[in-house]
Amino acid sequence: MKIVVLKFGGTSVGNVERIKKVAKIIVAYKKKNRKVIVVSSAMSGTTNDLIKKSQKLSSNFDQAEYDTLLATGEQIACALIAGRLNDLGYKSRSFLSWQIPIITDGPHKAARIDSINKKQILLFINSGGIPVVTGFQGINNNFRITTLGRGGTDVSAIMMAKFFNAEECVIYTDVEGVYTTDPRNHKKAKKISKISYDEMLEMASLGAKVMQPTSVQDAKLNNIDFTVRSSFIKKSGTLITNPKKAFSNQIITGITATKNESKITIVGVKDRPGVAASIFKPLSLNSINVDMVVQNISLNGKETDLTFTIKSEDVKKTEKLIKLNKKISFRKLNCDNNVSKVSIIGVGMIATPGITYRMFQALASKKINIMVISTSEIKISVLISNMFIKKAITALHKEFKLD
Amino acid sequence: MKIVVLKFGGTSVGNVERIKKVAKIIVAYKKKNRKVIVVSSAMSGTTNDLIKKSQKLSSNFDQAEYDTLLATGEQIACALIAGRLNDLGYKSRSFLSWQIPIITDGPHKAARIDSINKKQILLFINSGGIPVVTGFQGINNNFRITTLGRGGTDVSAIMMAKFFNAEECVIYTDVEGVYTTDPRNHKKAKKISKISYDEMLEMASLGAKVMQPTSVQDAKLNNIDFTVRSSFIKKSGTLITNPKKAFSNQIITGITATKNESKITIVGVKDRPGVAASIFKPLSLNSINVDMVVQNISLNGKETDLTFTIKSEDVKKTEKLIKLNKKISFRKLNCDNNVSKVSIIGVGMIATPGITYRMFQALASKKINIMVISTSEIKISVLISNMFIKKAITALHKEFKLD
Repeated sequence: MKIVVLKFGGTSVGNVERIKKVAKIIVAYKKKNRKVIVVSSAMSGTTNDLIKKSQKLSSNFDQAEYDTLLATGEQIACALIAGRLNDLGYKSRSFLSWQIPIITDGPHKAARIDSINKKQILLFINSGGIPVVTGFQGINNNFRITTLGRGGTDVSAIMMAKFFNAEECVIYTDVEGVYTTDPRNHKKAKKISKISYDEMLEMASLGAKVMQPTSVQDAKLNNIDFTVRSSFIKKSGTLITNPKKAFSNQIITGITATKNESKITIVGVKDRPGVAASIFKPLSLNSINVDMVVQNISLNGKETDLTFTIKSEDVKKTEKLIKLNKKISFRKLNCDNNVSKVSIIGVGMIATPGITYRMFQALASKKINIMVISTSEIKISVLISNMFIKKAITALHKEFKLD
Repeated sequence: MKIVVLKFGGTSVGNVERIKKVAKIIVAYKKKNRKVIVVSSAMSGTTNDLIKKSQKLSSNFDQAEYDTLLATGEQIACALIAGRLNDLGYKSRSFLSWQIPIITDGPHKAARIDSINKKQILLFINSGGIPVVTGFQGINNNFRITTLGRGGTDVSAIMMAKFFNAEECVIYTDVEGVYTTDPRNHKKAKKISKISYDEMLEMASLGAKVMQPTSVQDAKLNNIDFTVRSSFIKKSGTLITNPKKAFSNQIITGITATKNESKITIVGVKDRPGVAASIFKPLSLNSINVDMVVQNISLNGKETDLTFTIKSEDVKKTEKLIKLNKKISFRKLNCDNNVSKVSIIGVGMIATPGITYRMFQALASKKINIMVISTSEIKISVLISNMFIKKAITALHKEFKLD
């Protein structure tokens, strides 16, 4: 009999009533004679509350203490879940990362799981117990608590599934699964029953908030199938798996839209070899992530326009860095904060020609102007005006038969 | 250079502003070139909030999980203090009980510290660091977190002082020290500059809320001097020490008054050998603590009246147990909830005759009726009506020159 890993996110354990519900879900697996490992996040709100406290004490709070501080959130949730399971008559106990231990390397706030000692948990499972493991954290070689960064509890669950060779890994969250597009942008959005790692990675990177890319990447690297489903409603979720298992006749799997993008245009840049590098080097050194880039063809061989997108929060810093940059000269700097990146994602486009044309045609028919384009093997992204987001998604959702 | 242990209670670290103040206090010691070990409680309110959550999930919450749950409170406080100290430019880190480790034995929720491994902390102190240790907790031989019960962080601090052979142990709290009597009952109450362990034990047991008796007992057993003082106001506190150092010319050191006492009288009990034992056995078996006891002389050799005091919360249970008790017969059961135990405490009374007389005389002169009396070597307690508490304390405070 193999093991099932059940992960519960912050909203799933957000209050005492939710924890009772989670205990019921766990018990249902146990009643089917499944061997269960539970991995839990902190109760929603707890982590942010702790971060606020640390920020009030230091604008540069010690990173090791930050991890020690935040790790209490999962400890609370796990103790409460295990306590509830005991109350229901099921043998259960919390396993804190140092008790297992879960060994991590890498820096504080962004550690990576290196190994998980299986002994204690296997003993406990085999004695009929339900271990409840603190997600999001581990310890390093100095016996200090580390945390795994955003979406860390998903990573913990995926790695548990890997080390325990689990037959199933279920990520319980506050949404029913992965959707063809955000239902808030388009009412006809449909839940996707299965999706490949790469598609999920693109979706996650491009604005679908179901999962952090890191955990999807970990699942892909270790070939761990996992399901995302709701702890609030009893409905099947979305299976994230390898391309073979995820295969469907659908060419496009999903459509995403990101907000908080800004478009910067440097007009009349003196064109000479290496000018783009001169512009982007200081941005890179200041951790500003440049996303889409377009350079106009230099008609006179002297001047060119360079357009690129960044996160809106980086606009001021970027403008300053460009203005202070002595290695370039230009005529004007334009900034547009009212832009959004809309993407279509699907492994099907590898084998299907004409997708780009169909996308542009669908947008053009709605008179939506495309500012910048970027593509990968399985996605096409276009930058459009914010005001057209819903219109664009509706058109594309229909064009690629996702309605 | 020897070590000073600084303990901070829940109200002392009750919010972010308070933690900043605590960091300042610690830094002041460090600036005097002292080697400091900090021990902290959870931020006030945190522990009760966690207990409430556990109660909502189970009326009989698993004790090991209860300890795991509550231990997060001190972890949060210690990480925040250490983070703040780092922000101020002082090397500091939190030490969780499992990292040290602090080994305990005994049951969950009421464990006792067995040993403290000094190695890590000594290394850190000698490298110039300020260790911030989680109070109230330890781990047992199964690597589960245990807690030390009420006042547990005081116990942690006392035991730290013991194991590290500290030259000083300071308990920072929300009061300025130990008072001759509760200032709310008598305006002329004075702060005591020094008091012996035994007097402090009696004071703590008899209603002075400054410290739990357990930690005072631990200090006495290990001969650890400690000071209780305020983290809010910069004023000297009270030194709790051995009788020699605590010696003063004062005969009576303090006066206490307990509330929530009830007086039970069993009228017309059939008097025969062993009847008192028959009455008290079922109470003892039900964890009801009988305090003062008086048995009237049986005039006719057949019937007697038995009076005793218990905590008011135990009245209903006690009445039920006595009525169901088939080994005794009696005529009537009276209960008086409006009583209070007023005590005078002082090692001086051992060598000074006539203290009992002076106490009774002082109360009699104010027409205060004494219901029950109990004495030990260093204290005399009397049971009086609730309505006379302030009057009695005022009279006694004056009689024994504490004003």
